[in-house]
Amino acid sequence: MPDGEAKAISTEPLTEAEAVWTKLVKTTYLDPKGVTRTWESAERRTRPKDSDIDGVGIVAIVKKETGPEIVLQKQYRPPVDKIVIELPAGLIDAGETPEQAAIRELKEETGYVAEVLETSPVMFNDPGFCNTNLRMVHVAVDMALPENRDPKPELEENEFIEVFHVRLADLWAECIRLEAEGYAIDARIANLAEGIEMAKKFGL
Amino acid sequence: MPDGEAKAISTEPLTEAEAVWTKLVKTTYLDPKGVTRTWESAERRTRPKDSDIDGVGIVAIVKKETGPEIVLQKQYRPPVDKIVIELPAGLIDAGETPEQAAIRELKEETGYVAEVLETSPVMFNDPGFCNTNLRMVHVAVDMALPENRDPKPELEENEFIEVFHVRLADLWAECIRLEAEGYAIDARIANLAEGIEMAKKFGL
Repeated sequence: MPDGEAKAISTEPLTEAEAVWTKLVKTTYLDPKGVTRTWESAERRTRPKDSDIDGVGIVAIVKKETGPEIVLQKQYRPPVDKIVIELPAGLIDAGETPEQAAIRELKEETGYVAEVLETSPVMFNDPGFCNTNLRMVHVAVDMALPENRDPKPELEENEFIEVFHVRLADLWAECIRLEAEGYAIDARIANLAEGIEMAKKFGL
Repeated sequence: MPDGEAKAISTEPLTEAEAVWTKLVKTTYLDPKGVTRTWESAERRTRPKDSDIDGVGIVAIVKKETGPEIVLQKQYRPPVDKIVIELPAGLIDAGETPEQAAIRELKEETGYVAEVLETSPVMFNDPGFCNTNLRMVHVAVDMALPENRDPKPELEENEFIEVFHVRLADLWAECIRLEAEGYAIDARIANLAEGIEMAKKFGL
């Protein structure tokens, strides 16, 4: 990681009046029996009006002779006060397609240029608790391209990201190893890795 | 689904004073350059003091002659105002292990009894936005057991869950089909399905 270790100093309640990026809402709903009930949940305030998603996650695959590798990141995340192992990802801008957001965010966070292969359905991150969601955009990174040999990330001044690659075949073992080293694991990566292990186990 | 269609009637801001299940927090932190910054995020209020997770997700596999199947649920979720395709899942109780929570929740939500096979690292659902997390507990459901031939879910009076099975080999295609039918897809299922497809594609 660059420079020193990021860390939380304090955490305090945030009032609705102070909140700029987040909000809590109360939904009044009819259950399937016609009974009126309420439910608390959290939302981002940043989703563009014309968008059905908050952002994108990027599955960037690099072909190597030793097998395909996935591009991962280490990034300190204040909500969990740990360095998190994540996919490249980011919020979508107004008017962008998911694919445009993925190509832009991948370039900004890793410096890589890539080709879009496939875009997933909308996925909800924790739908009993919040409405945040994303689409996964699968892209191929061709390391033979001149731009990818010496990639130049374009980070915001408050962004600190270390990029690394893991062989897809090793992803589950790496999640377990990195957790043991003190990193937090993002659910998208861990679930992808679980799916790979399940396919191996059941011979799919 | 049982009875009528659940639906949201209204959504309004929730103040900190009203909130019972959720909260917003502001974390003050040092970035890797030693600069003091702040970050907004959301949390559940329900995590037991002695627990490092909010809950568990359950990967329940049923062996069939036509290939392994995964147990899924349809459940209306007010935060997204849709019926969501989810894994069996639930919050952990104080003093419970993840495996105990998984066996209890699977029984309550589906009626199935199961054998625990493996428990995952902690996974963070959306670590730039909230601290909610879980462990995935993989279990085997033996349909030859008498309890599993006529399973009896034990739902709360505000829970309405329809249980179904999908062949693991078809999970990605089913996610796409169910989204086209108007269901929302939980990220855990979609990412597992993506991992299975990636393993097939890359011959892992």
